[in-house]
Amino acid sequence: MSRPHPDYGPPPPLRADGLRIIPLGGVGEIGRNMTVFEHAGRLLIVDCGVLFPEDFQPGVDLILPDFTAIRDRLGDIDALILTHAHEDHIGAVPYLLRERRDIPIIGTRLTLALLNAKLAEHRIKAVTREIREEERHTYGPFECEFFAVNHSIPDAVAVAIRTDAGLVLHTGDFKMDQLPLDGRLTDLGGFARLGREGVDLLLSDSTNAEVPGFVSSEREIAPVIDGIFRDATRRIIVACFASHVHRVQQVLDAAETHGRSVCFVGRSMVRNMGVARDLGLLRVPPGLIIDARDVDSLPDRNICLISTGSQGEPLSALSRMANRDHQIRIQAGDTVVLASSLIPGNENAVFRVINGLTRYGAKVVHKGVAKVHTSGHAPAGELLYVLNATRPSNVMPVHGEWRHLRAHAKLAEATGVPADHVVLAEDGMVIDLLDGRARITGAVPCGFVYVDGAAVGDVGEPSLKDRRILGEEGFITITVVVDAAAGKVIVGPDLSARGFTDSPATFDSVARLVSDGLADAMRGGMNDTAALQQLVRRTVGRWVNEHYRRRPMIIPVVLEV
Amino acid sequence: MSRPHPDYGPPPPLRADGLRIIPLGGVGEIGRNMTVFEHAGRLLIVDCGVLFPEDFQPGVDLILPDFTAIRDRLGDIDALILTHAHEDHIGAVPYLLRERRDIPIIGTRLTLALLNAKLAEHRIKAVTREIREEERHTYGPFECEFFAVNHSIPDAVAVAIRTDAGLVLHTGDFKMDQLPLDGRLTDLGGFARLGREGVDLLLSDSTNAEVPGFVSSEREIAPVIDGIFRDATRRIIVACFASHVHRVQQVLDAAETHGRSVCFVGRSMVRNMGVARDLGLLRVPPGLIIDARDVDSLPDRNICLISTGSQGEPLSALSRMANRDHQIRIQAGDTVVLASSLIPGNENAVFRVINGLTRYGAKVVHKGVAKVHTSGHAPAGELLYVLNATRPSNVMPVHGEWRHLRAHAKLAEATGVPADHVVLAEDGMVIDLLDGRARITGAVPCGFVYVDGAAVGDVGEPSLKDRRILGEEGFITITVVVDAAAGKVIVGPDLSARGFTDSPATFDSVARLVSDGLADAMRGGMNDTAALQQLVRRTVGRWVNEHYRRRPMIIPVVLEV
Repeated sequence: MSRPHPDYGPPPPLRADGLRIIPLGGVGEIGRNMTVFEHAGRLLIVDCGVLFPEDFQPGVDLILPDFTAIRDRLGDIDALILTHAHEDHIGAVPYLLRERRDIPIIGTRLTLALLNAKLAEHRIKAVTREIREEERHTYGPFECEFFAVNHSIPDAVAVAIRTDAGLVLHTGDFKMDQLPLDGRLTDLGGFARLGREGVDLLLSDSTNAEVPGFVSSEREIAPVIDGIFRDATRRIIVACFASHVHRVQQVLDAAETHGRSVCFVGRSMVRNMGVARDLGLLRVPPGLIIDARDVDSLPDRNICLISTGSQGEPLSALSRMANRDHQIRIQAGDTVVLASSLIPGNENAVFRVINGLTRYGAKVVHKGVAKVHTSGHAPAGELLYVLNATRPSNVMPVHGEWRHLRAHAKLAEATGVPADHVVLAEDGMVIDLLDGRARITGAVPCGFVYVDGAAVGDVGEPSLKDRRILGEEGFITITVVVDAAAGKVIVGPDLSARGFTDSPATFDSVARLVSDGLADAMRGGMNDTAALQQLVRRTVGRWVNEHYRRRPMIIPVVLEV
Repeated sequence: MSRPHPDYGPPPPLRADGLRIIPLGGVGEIGRNMTVFEHAGRLLIVDCGVLFPEDFQPGVDLILPDFTAIRDRLGDIDALILTHAHEDHIGAVPYLLRERRDIPIIGTRLTLALLNAKLAEHRIKAVTREIREEERHTYGPFECEFFAVNHSIPDAVAVAIRTDAGLVLHTGDFKMDQLPLDGRLTDLGGFARLGREGVDLLLSDSTNAEVPGFVSSEREIAPVIDGIFRDATRRIIVACFASHVHRVQQVLDAAETHGRSVCFVGRSMVRNMGVARDLGLLRVPPGLIIDARDVDSLPDRNICLISTGSQGEPLSALSRMANRDHQIRIQAGDTVVLASSLIPGNENAVFRVINGLTRYGAKVVHKGVAKVHTSGHAPAGELLYVLNATRPSNVMPVHGEWRHLRAHAKLAEATGVPADHVVLAEDGMVIDLLDGRARITGAVPCGFVYVDGAAVGDVGEPSLKDRRILGEEGFITITVVVDAAAGKVIVGPDLSARGFTDSPATFDSVARLVSDGLADAMRGGMNDTAALQQLVRRTVGRWVNEHYRRRPMIIPVVLEV
């Protein structure tokens, strides 16, 4: 699945005083963030996440960064730094560890705790080292300094990487809520100190670069949630991301105030909130949490469920409630709060859930109608602060699709970074920092690596193309056994179709066409199976096009006795 | 595909002084609007549109209203009124006319002109009668009065229907731009006159019922578009809906002001703007329009293309430009304007187009970053005006998903309509207006009718379910010829798969399992083909699950010599 880049060849050998940066994911897309830094023959990796498939990648479970470029250099990796515990930053770690089990993994307390919970499900025990913001640690030739950043999960960090080639700051994912619930601000002062020292290259989160202005504080959600709790007379169901500890905290606080017990619903919600509570990051009043079994024993007005499924995932509890396919039966007067973003591509699924819940009489509150969500990523106004604080010589927008990267590039230029010092790269491109300039010097083969079921990488573009055809058009198989030497059809043709039509007994006329065509062809001397199959395919294809104006996949199976 | 309603049985016979309303589409969804009115044994239909399929309806081209309920009463139809020429209101007319060719079709000038252009492509000649706002016409027992409404296509109307049962107002799609480009306001005064007369039932557009406030005027788009034209130094490409005559007018005006020639791109854009121009609804300065062939002969700064493809349709000119698969090669400095809404479900496709264009250096302006679009549907504030002007005894929200219908119901209640006088219905439900009260009295069978290629209705849920499986998982066929009497496998097993794996030569081990299993079974006396196929299916299914944790469709073909 790895493909060479169409515009760039292999990079030149890296100079001893140079730093090489290779994004293996996350640049040109939102997801599977992974950046490889190379210096003095050694490698440092920042993040190793997954990407979720789009509609043109049907049936795929996950998409991994392409490890091809580092596969024969696994021994050179001095550390894997995880900036925070979101899936698009840690989800591919189990797959990287399959290739080398003892890569030292660096992260904050919550990040490692959530990683370890995930690795336990994969039955992997990793080598981890806990770090905190404001600490400095050296991994091989990479001197790293960590900075607190505020994001939609606690305990996120940015990392500054010092080498002989210069100082690089990688922000990770961040925003700059000035009133964060936990008081842990993005360390803009630290960024400014780096700026005074001289940042040679800034890699910064581009997700919201198109969005003007500043984030609302997470604190502004609390009064809205409180109002919902005050007004609701029956059950309240809040759906949000299973890692959004602060959002869950605000719901717990509201539940406590308004005398509702809380039940966590969904495996990852239960798991993550257990971890957050154990680490003291989630304050849970004694007796507040109840078991799912006990929900029915309390009056509706004393119940609050906190659930996964805010993206309309079809198998989630929330989707099943919307279809009356869950033990919790939605009733008129229930209130459902989607306290989450709406990730592009999920709109139809989310609206289906909202419509289903509404149909059964629930009141559905979502960010389109009330301030029940604020983004985790810095919009343009905040990105400017970071650009101005760090005054970087070179900027490489990361964590974004092309539209985000370009918007971020414009912001960098607006703060005075020369356009030719802004590196607009894509996954697989090789950027070298040399003599204070960052430039694209080549590319390594890089592609989508698909996880489907138990297998990694066996499903690629050919299978996906077939799936897209099959999923749109279905298929027709034509099986026939011939005695080519005798020029006779022995068995068949046997036609069957799936995903093509609901009508039975459609194929009598084309079966005759196939049968006659084969007999003619064999009488004319055609006795090669491949040629006979081709004949069958053409006959059926023409018939389908004439009668249906469709293009199902046509699978001729001509067997010889 | 027609299904009985789970909660309602067939309605009682209709009283002679009653009016029956049956929505066959558009209530519970946005699309395929079609409402049947019945009185004194006769039928009046308002609109007959198509719905575009969602991701769970793969490969489907269009979805029609379900005509089952009126199929044996086609002769009773006195008129089909079309409120305006959008696809979700006229798209299914060719299919209804297949069932009865001479249904009288009523509409304004532009509506009929665009309908006739569509019917010509289907080679259908219809019986049409042109009407204008403020006219009254009687069709059988239905006395109809038409009212101008403002929408995102010119010449839209609402219709009041008077029968012995009372006065019903169907708004069609509308908004209340108070400064419309053509000066043609939604006739709120007319609605108020009906209110004084006494509206027994209001059917009103719910699309934007969740959106607070009022629409911005279409006029506010002009300065934004003008600014884009002023700043652009290379080509400008504007994508918008092919029926949005006023939006196109504003682009033509800007092009004229700034010395750019205009080329229409896309079949429906060329066709519709030709019709609008012929009817005097689009003012085209002489010499402004150029042919696609001449685009390359003019300097970039003198070119404006107006194109379809604003929803990211994969085969549209705009999508092909974004993939460098079009004669127009996007270059750094080109400006692309998406002057359109983003219909839910199209986000990924649209963002792919934006990313592709951005990658090649185009500046992309869309409604997320500049005021280049305003909706065609009345938000909550305007719906309140209509409710207050018409003071209806009963309200039935139409043209919406459940979330929109409920939001509209709340608005009606806020203006004083008692909750039990608000009818929340779904497609196929039967609503009777009797003695001044509208109530659901039953339901008729109603379902999705799919158009796929040349066929209508042969693809239904079974085929779609197969497509969904095939599209996610692919399939494996196992063909084997046996001599059951002799207990021998004669040919095969021959295994092949599509959409399952890219790896060649995967099936050797399972072929042996199948072969051995069949031989054993036949030796044990199993000689029934169905049983042998079942055995093959189980063997392969178990093997796939163990080795891949996947569930492809498994198609055993066991043939007997």
